[in-house]
Amino acid sequence: MTKTDVSGLSQLGQNTAQPTSPEEAQLERVPAGHAGTDYVVRFTAPEFTSICPMTGQPDFAHIVIDYIPGDWLVESKSLKLYLHSFRNHGAFHEDCTIDIAKRLVDLLAPKWLRIGAYWYPRGGIPIDVFWQTGPAPEGVWIPDQGVATYRGRG
Amino acid sequence: MTKTDVSGLSQLGQNTAQPTSPEEAQLERVPAGHAGTDYVVRFTAPEFTSICPMTGQPDFAHIVIDYIPGDWLVESKSLKLYLHSFRNHGAFHEDCTIDIAKRLVDLLAPKWLRIGAYWYPRGGIPIDVFWQTGPAPEGVWIPDQGVATYRGRG
Amino acid sequence: MTKTDVSGLSQLGQNTAQPTSPEEAQLERVPAGHAGTDYVVRFTAPEFTSICPMTGQPDFAHIVIDYIPGDWLVESKSLKLYLHSFRNHGAFHEDCTIDIAKRLVDLLAPKWLRIGAYWYPRGGIPIDVFWQTGPAPEGVWIPDQGVATYRGRG
Amino acid sequence: MTKTDVSGLSQLGQNTAQPTSPEEAQLERVPAGHAGTDYVVRFTAPEFTSICPMTGQPDFAHIVIDYIPGDWLVESKSLKLYLHSFRNHGAFHEDCTIDIAKRLVDLLAPKWLRIGAYWYPRGGIPIDVFWQTGPAPEGVWIPDQGVATYRGRG
Amino acid sequence: MTKTDVSGLSQLGQNTAQPTSPEEAQLERVPAGHAGTDYVVRFTAPEFTSICPMTGQPDFAHIVIDYIPGDWLVESKSLKLYLHSFRNHGAFHEDCTIDIAKRLVDLLAPKWLRIGAYWYPRGGIPIDVFWQTGPAPEGVWIPDQGVATYRGRG
Amino acid sequence: MTKTDVSGLSQLGQNTAQPTSPEEAQLERVPAGHAGTDYVVRFTAPEFTSICPMTGQPDFAHIVIDYIPGDWLVESKSLKLYLHSFRNHGAFHEDCTIDIAKRLVDLLAPKWLRIGAYWYPRGGIPIDVFWQTGPAPEGVWIPDQGVATYRGRG
Amino acid sequence: MTKTDVSGLSQLGQNTAQPTSPEEAQLERVPAGHAGTDYVVRFTAPEFTSICPMTGQPDFAHIVIDYIPGDWLVESKSLKLYLHSFRNHGAFHEDCTIDIAKRLVDLLAPKWLRIGAYWYPRGGIPIDVFWQTGPAPEGVWIPDQGVATYRGRG
Amino acid sequence: MTKTDVSGLSQLGQNTAQPTSPEEAQLERVPAGHAGTDYVVRFTAPEFTSICPMTGQPDFAHIVIDYIPGDWLVESKSLKLYLHSFRNHGAFHEDCTIDIAKRLVDLLAPKWLRIGAYWYPRGGIPIDVFWQTGPAPEGVWIPDQGVATYRGRG
Amino acid sequence: MTKTDVSGLSQLGQNTAQPTSPEEAQLERVPAGHAGTDYVVRFTAPEFTSICPMTGQPDFAHIVIDYIPGDWLVESKSLKLYLHSFRNHGAFHEDCTIDIAKRLVDLLAPKWLRIGAYWYPRGGIPIDVFWQTGPAPEGVWIPDQGVATYRGRG
Amino acid sequence: MTKTDVSGLSQLGQNTAQPTSPEEAQLERVPAGHAGTDYVVRFTAPEFTSICPMTGQPDFAHIVIDYIPGDWLVESKSLKLYLHSFRNHGAFHEDCTIDIAKRLVDLLAPKWLRIGAYWYPRGGIPIDVFWQTGPAPEGVWIPDQGVATYRGRG
Ligand SMILES: [Ca+2]
Ligand SMILES: [Ca+2]
Ligand SMILES: [Ca+2]
Ligand SMILES: [Ca+2]
Ligand SMILES: [Ca+2]
Ligand SMILES: [Ca+2]
Ligand SMILES: [Ca+2]
Ligand SMILES: [Ca+2]
Ligand SMILES: [Ca+2]
Ligand SMILES: [Ca+2]
Ligand SMILES: [Ca+2]
Ligand SMILES: [Ca+2]
Ligand SMILES: [Ca+2]
Ligand SMILES: [Ca+2]
Ligand SMILES: [Ca+2]
Ligand SMILES: [Ca+2]
Repeated sequence: MTKTDVSGLSQLGQNTAQPTSPEEAQLERVPAGHAGTDYVVRFTAPEFTSICPMTGQPDFAHIVIDYIPGDWLVESKSLKLYLHSFRNHGAFHEDCTIDIAKRLVDLLAPKWLRIGAYWYPRGGIPIDVFWQTGPAPEGVWIPDQGVATYRGRG
Repeated sequence: MTKTDVSGLSQLGQNTAQPTSPEEAQLERVPAGHAGTDYVVRFTAPEFTSICPMTGQPDFAHIVIDYIPGDWLVESKSLKLYLHSFRNHGAFHEDCTIDIAKRLVDLLAPKWLRIGAYWYPRGGIPIDVFWQTGPAPEGVWIPDQGVATYRGRG
Repeated sequence: MTKTDVSGLSQLGQNTAQPTSPEEAQLERVPAGHAGTDYVVRFTAPEFTSICPMTGQPDFAHIVIDYIPGDWLVESKSLKLYLHSFRNHGAFHEDCTIDIAKRLVDLLAPKWLRIGAYWYPRGGIPIDVFWQTGPAPEGVWIPDQGVATYRGRG
Repeated sequence: MTKTDVSGLSQLGQNTAQPTSPEEAQLERVPAGHAGTDYVVRFTAPEFTSICPMTGQPDFAHIVIDYIPGDWLVESKSLKLYLHSFRNHGAFHEDCTIDIAKRLVDLLAPKWLRIGAYWYPRGGIPIDVFWQTGPAPEGVWIPDQGVATYRGRG
Repeated sequence: MTKTDVSGLSQLGQNTAQPTSPEEAQLERVPAGHAGTDYVVRFTAPEFTSICPMTGQPDFAHIVIDYIPGDWLVESKSLKLYLHSFRNHGAFHEDCTIDIAKRLVDLLAPKWLRIGAYWYPRGGIPIDVFWQTGPAPEGVWIPDQGVATYRGRG
Repeated sequence: MTKTDVSGLSQLGQNTAQPTSPEEAQLERVPAGHAGTDYVVRFTAPEFTSICPMTGQPDFAHIVIDYIPGDWLVESKSLKLYLHSFRNHGAFHEDCTIDIAKRLVDLLAPKWLRIGAYWYPRGGIPIDVFWQTGPAPEGVWIPDQGVATYRGRG
Repeated sequence: MTKTDVSGLSQLGQNTAQPTSPEEAQLERVPAGHAGTDYVVRFTAPEFTSICPMTGQPDFAHIVIDYIPGDWLVESKSLKLYLHSFRNHGAFHEDCTIDIAKRLVDLLAPKWLRIGAYWYPRGGIPIDVFWQTGPAPEGVWIPDQGVATYRGRG
Repeated sequence: MTKTDVSGLSQLGQNTAQPTSPEEAQLERVPAGHAGTDYVVRFTAPEFTSICPMTGQPDFAHIVIDYIPGDWLVESKSLKLYLHSFRNHGAFHEDCTIDIAKRLVDLLAPKWLRIGAYWYPRGGIPIDVFWQTGPAPEGVWIPDQGVATYRGRG
Repeated sequence: MTKTDVSGLSQLGQNTAQPTSPEEAQLERVPAGHAGTDYVVRFTAPEFTSICPMTGQPDFAHIVIDYIPGDWLVESKSLKLYLHSFRNHGAFHEDCTIDIAKRLVDLLAPKWLRIGAYWYPRGGIPIDVFWQTGPAPEGVWIPDQGVATYRGRG
Repeated sequence: MTKTDVSGLSQLGQNTAQPTSPEEAQLERVPAGHAGTDYVVRFTAPEFTSICPMTGQPDFAHIVIDYIPGDWLVESKSLKLYLHSFRNHGAFHEDCTIDIAKRLVDLLAPKWLRIGAYWYPRGGIPIDVFWQTGPAPEGVWIPDQGVATYRGRG
């Protein structure tokens, strides 16, 4: 049975203060087991919120991240705190989405990563943003993110 | 963190009169960040209506637009106003759908764009129109639009 | 174990010609077992069609009938043939629905009966018709018919 | 078999101009058959639009009307044209909904009527308006309108 | 913590031969705990099949049984075997459904019982049968059986 | 803005008699605009009925047709009348479905066409028939027809 | 046609700063038309977030408010701003929910009001809070809020 | 219009005894029309039952079969009787599924065939079996079978 | 703003050992605020497991508890640990469900409480258990638990 | 008709003690029939639970396993007991999932295998783990696992 090495972590199992900006947040990683095995890890974060940079009004999104680990796994508590840190951060939908994905790519050097950000409607029209680092490695299984298209009322 | 240049816009953050025809509507654009990154932006517009050119009766559609930005992003408020401007415009379903897509293509010169228009039934039989500028660039992630097929009653 | 008396039937287990009008159709009945027991029988007929009396064009409906037997059960093959007999019959939605229900009431003298007719949309607006002979007898269990409301597209 | 008297109608089977305001629209009625029978007629209108009186922007609603006829049925083509006539009419959601219902009550003197208006979200928060003329007569069957609650994304 | 007395059972925890008819099947009971407490037990049996008494062809049903125990609970393994025993039994839908319910009523003398039998379509029209022993005791909670109405295709 | 040439049509905008057989029905076409543009047109017909050639009993189907126009569009009123003309026509499910598709192929010489016919169950087992003229041209977008598989009850 | 008096409002049609706490937020009202008519107004707010008073971590809820107006309607823009103002407010789920409802009751003196707050899961177990001012007036139509119960995964 | 040759059939339009084992059942075929046309025929059989070879207890499955005809179509009544003949047959899920498929392959020599068998849970864990004769011929349209994955309760 | 008194709690904010049986588990309570206000608190526990007392095999259930507080609220961390404590406890479904409810009734003396336990299928037939302490107090709003009925496969 | 050789099994048809750890559990296999036939067997296990190695609290998952047999089938009762054996086993989600898959790979030497593990949320963010042994053999049919993405509330 496999055992993950958690010796390098500073936040797991601690009472940790909420980071107040994405820059301040500490995104942490642990060594990935099963080194020769290309599997997918999916995080689903339906509790994401940031600020509209033009109006100061809150924006909301449902975010799903899929990745194939290289040498590292993201530690899930630090990911949660990182996503919370956008709470008072102002950014356009397209920029905010791509910035989150690129921070993870910098930290993890994954074999592959994609992000789907499903923003709540403004003006009756929601924006979705979809990005992946490139085509998935051949032969790896990556299910649909399965978030329904916006459909108004009725 | 990325910052979008909005200096060239005339409608965002303004009180803007409703344009009364597609020709009058000003569809605007901003420079796209993340220049080397091929991601998809999806707009979902469930509140679309126009006029039947034969009978003058209202038509309704649910419209979804996906595109991969080149140098430009469409500014979302101007897109909303543009879609509103079809309110008193008469056109066949097929023409109207393709006209919207082509106006966006002219403005944005996107790497790729598609439109799905799901029209309300007339005579018991709805029409859907689907178009894309061509095959998507390899390795870009573009989810299904996920709008359910018409199914009558029962 | 209960055994139904089928001696009075003329169509069941026979090759029977399709009746060509509601008047011609023979709706048959068998004696109901479990005489002192008030239970509900539901027939669901999603394959109903008739003719518009103004234009001659076909109309379609999904029909659900619930009843509490008195002394009689409707024989299900004869009910099927009766519903088929509207195929070339012209009638308004409200009339057609109530006529079906009243024919069953005349045949069966049920303790209670209701009909829900869910017509396909014409001009963008479907008509549903709901009728019951009166309040249900106390203490009898009658579930919802559970046909979804029409919702257009998107 | 029942036959509806359509002699008093002016619009059915005619090419009829679109009315341009609710005041101008002619809502018509026909005598109801099955006089002693209390049944429910449901109209589902997912294609309703009006104008916001403060901003001039379009509003959308999905409207469902249920009624128990007294001496009159509303003629369905005239109802369609009446609902279309709100297209350039400005009104608050609450007023618009109740006004439609009261116009039908004045025309039909129904035994009972209710309206459910499910407006599209503005500012992230939709408004629904529900009204009925009073408790339904005892023993009449009136199914749920079955329109889903708004739920945002994700 | 409550402990059920299973001393009177002959089939539970045994390898038991399949009964070949409803008459042969041994439906067993255990004393109910919580004597003064009126709660509902629901069994859902989507694996039910019997034989058409006219044609010898198989029929299928989805059956849901709710009851409020008096002094007895039905033992669930014996219920399963009893339902299996209809596999080669011929009966009309209405009779078969009511017979099952009455056998349980005879065994258990429940405070209340109902059965919903949702038969697969024959001739395009399925039959549902609903029965309860009488109105439920006041103040007992009995949720919907929640089986969808048949709707054909599309 | 594009304008469709309707000069060759004989039925549109006319009161047209219902054709009484597929042979008699006049399926009409108009020249397609946007000659160099490969888009998909979908017709959804949940109101289809024909006759079983062995027993004379009615059959029902939900039919969806997708095609990529070449030089011609099918005129939608003539398609509706053509589908209505099967009302008294006897044919096996497989033949009927392929015959409809081939008639359209003969008329339109489309770049591509497919048909999905979802027949209502007979003997507890529905038949679906799926056909396309060949693989779709590369780079054209064609969503799923999205009709649910039959599932019986429960 | 009815006209709402908006003369007493200070925020509608203005650029209004985001209030930073519930205390600071100005909840406004307008006189209700249709004085003798008891109808229900429903607000659905799927974008609600506040702060956990113990941990400082964000909480999320989906909130639905139904009320029957007395002399006043709540102005919807001020309601939106009021709900936004909980963004940095710390409160237990039960307290927060009841506080929102009571603030509306104080402002509007409605004939009746209820609130449903559906909080996101913590520790695998979500909490819902439901409150109403008392039984609804007789004969008023108040549909279910229709928010699905939490169901975990799978 | 196409006409199927049914001269070689022995069961269609006859009263036919139920076969009592798969070996005894007569699976019949008719010549396929549209010889050069590769289309798919789907049979959906939610009414399948067999016997566990270890315990003698009944098993249930929902079975979907897709095939592309070569020179032959399976006659649907004989297919129904063949599936019924497993009623008293004992076999493991994997064997039973593959045996059905191979019998059809032997009879029809189809261009391609697949079977999906969705068995009801035993021990809390259902087994699904999926097989096809090989990759589908290029350019043939074969929709998903669309049967939901099992998910237990809640 | 209301403040809950947490001074009597021994487990909240502590690292607490998992209790190994229901008897050992400490279910705790806090004083309820809003003494004169009848509202409902719902706990949803899709992560419940216990042991079959006859075979030692694991059982699973999805459990939903609703109550109207009297003087006490159950502390949610202690409830979680209490439910976890059934992990190695053997009990029949009916007993286990009622025992959980009664332990809460003893601790809280609520104005009203109900429990719905939706057990995973055994032998193809799941058991649901529903209980409430009595009819709900008049005028309190208690939505459906909304857990779907079991339906097998297909 | 095919017959599986079960002579090598030690647990099937026996009363078998629950294994208390994955190491202790005996995962068994039988020879696969239909040797030259590449089909897929799917096991769906919504009743999985293990222990968090950091906190000792229970974790839950919904697990789906698909494989193409080589010379061996896994015996389903032994698979059930193996999955039960994680009940008191502590492991991270990623490790636990991959360990299960690799144990099956070691036992069966399948032509291909994949596992999808859908863990219940912790800290608002669930983790899914997806792995397959490599690309599926060409021409084998492997449907989606079809487990819905997590979506929070509302
Ligand atoms: Ca909207
Ligand atoms: Ca709609
Ligand atoms: Ca229509
Ligand atoms: Ca897909
Ligand atoms: Ca209900
Ligand atoms: Ca919104
Ligand atoms: Ca929505
Ligand atoms: Ca959500
Ligand atoms: Ca049938
Ligand atoms: Ca249908
Ligand atoms: Ca089923
Ligand atoms: Ca959680
Ligand atoms: Ca309801
Ligand atoms: Ca089971
Ligand atoms: Ca579950
Ligand atoms: Ca798929």
